[in-house]
Amino acid sequence: MESRRRIDRALKSCLDQATAAPCPPRLGDAMRHAVFPGGARFRPEFCLAVAEACGGAHPALADAAAAAIELLHCASLVYDDLPCFDDAAVRRGHPTVHAAFGEELAILAGNALIVLAFDALARAGGPHPHLLPGLLRVVARGVGGPSGIVAGQGWESEAGLDDLGRYHRAKTGALFEAAVIAGAMTGGGDPLQWTGLGYRLGEAYQIADDIRDAYGRPELLGKPVGQDRAHHRPSAVRELGLDGATGHLNELVDQAAGRIPACAGRNDLLAHLRRWSEQLLAAPPPLAASLHS
Amino acid sequence: MESRRRIDRALKSCLDQATAAPCPPRLGDAMRHAVFPGGARFRPEFCLAVAEACGGAHPALADAAAAAIELLHCASLVYDDLPCFDDAAVRRGHPTVHAAFGEELAILAGNALIVLAFDALARAGGPHPHLLPGLLRVVARGVGGPSGIVAGQGWESEAGLDDLGRYHRAKTGALFEAAVIAGAMTGGGDPLQWTGLGYRLGEAYQIADDIRDAYGRPELLGKPVGQDRAHHRPSAVRELGLDGATGHLNELVDQAAGRIPACAGRNDLLAHLRRWSEQLLAAPPPLAASLHS
Repeated sequence: MESRRRIDRALKSCLDQATAAPCPPRLGDAMRHAVFPGGARFRPEFCLAVAEACGGAHPALADAAAAAIELLHCASLVYDDLPCFDDAAVRRGHPTVHAAFGEELAILAGNALIVLAFDALARAGGPHPHLLPGLLRVVARGVGGPSGIVAGQGWESEAGLDDLGRYHRAKTGALFEAAVIAGAMTGGGDPLQWTGLGYRLGEAYQIADDIRDAYGRPELLGKPVGQDRAHHRPSAVRELGLDGATGHLNELVDQAAGRIPACAGRNDLLAHLRRWSEQLLAAPPPLAASLHS
Repeated sequence: MESRRRIDRALKSCLDQATAAPCPPRLGDAMRHAVFPGGARFRPEFCLAVAEACGGAHPALADAAAAAIELLHCASLVYDDLPCFDDAAVRRGHPTVHAAFGEELAILAGNALIVLAFDALARAGGPHPHLLPGLLRVVARGVGGPSGIVAGQGWESEAGLDDLGRYHRAKTGALFEAAVIAGAMTGGGDPLQWTGLGYRLGEAYQIADDIRDAYGRPELLGKPVGQDRAHHRPSAVRELGLDGATGHLNELVDQAAGRIPACAGRNDLLAHLRRWSEQLLAAPPPLAASLHS
């Protein structure tokens, strides 16, 4: 698939630059381990799909945005897996970064990937001075405070978490939202027409993740299951039951489809969305290992 | 001091934005704890001093750059103090972030501060599209791979660390260098004339830090001592002895002074540098607590 090649090429270019000499070799290896071979790359795939749907005006900038978003996602997984969070030894069927390189290098690699994400935008953004500040802010909002990934994780440390929707929007929705908006901006679209779509994708994804955590088989998922219960985390399955969670997931995908505005590539993007939701729901064995991306 | 007020105001503005609702309250508290009251703010002070020496062309952008650099420094201290690194319970006379808020929130707060640094640059950089990409890259280089703070820390996990200068340049020099170059860029100077000065400041600072770690008193420093020996880290004191280390520090300050190019505020900047080096060398009790910034 052409988009997957674009994403992996952009990621490789970022990592080649950040891990070149004089980078300490093991730090560079830990960074690569966090990013390659990678999972399904859902977020950057949506970023590029939206950019293309809008006309694909600035492909190099779209590639950089897609890579930045995936780098931030990969960093978040490195932290998720640490002993003080999920304490997971396996991810995507491979040892997690801290299991392979130790906790220090895992933390440093995560830090470096966050920095690299913004550096990638800066590098590609030079020829697009009118887009760069807004693009940076959209990406930062997806991952930082007050309502990005770190906020979502932060809710897990609060006694008063009583709003599953807000938690999911921050933990998962915010970066999908950033992926869609960044896609629109770099594709030549009007980002204001694309708000809210990504949050629905993220919530659908999070529900699928909760279902896999409750009912999946670790040997197919490439990671341990039962983590939500073990860590007393909110879960759509616990709140809605399996049928309720699946129904809500379908509803969210329909809502997402309804939010795609009129644009040149609307039909292709709808097809992309449908394929994605089928993957989420079916998760047959060959796909399952790469689904948790 | 006017510059200190500017720095703290810029930091407060960043944190107010990043920790506003719907940020999880404890995450917001942990982020503030990492940044305030703060230490001597050496890096942002140099950033602003260089910007003023160059003419102070873009003060709001200089404030944002100074804040970004300090946010990244504060994040690096949060990680330094974690159990898997220095396992320090006290910093600047207060509990470290993980001691006060737990390891999860410390890691999340550090992540959020890194993101916030780049968001601050994006926010202030809108009116300066010709400066923003370069400024972002300078700051990213100071902290990320292949030769920023994370690389410096990464060398501590390599078996083959045999170059103390390279280690110090990455661990400490790179962010001082970024502070100076960012100051020049935002002050209206030519950044190419300002290279190398910050590395010397950083190496001088690192040597002073090594001396304090070897000979300082924890009750005056507000943090434990003897960490370099305990963690088998390279140390200028171990390599050169106390006299050799002090002599090298003085030499580096002289070299730094010699690298200040002709500019409107050269004398003021020289005075700033001399005051700073006196603080580094004297470190009398009332200063010492705030010296490890």
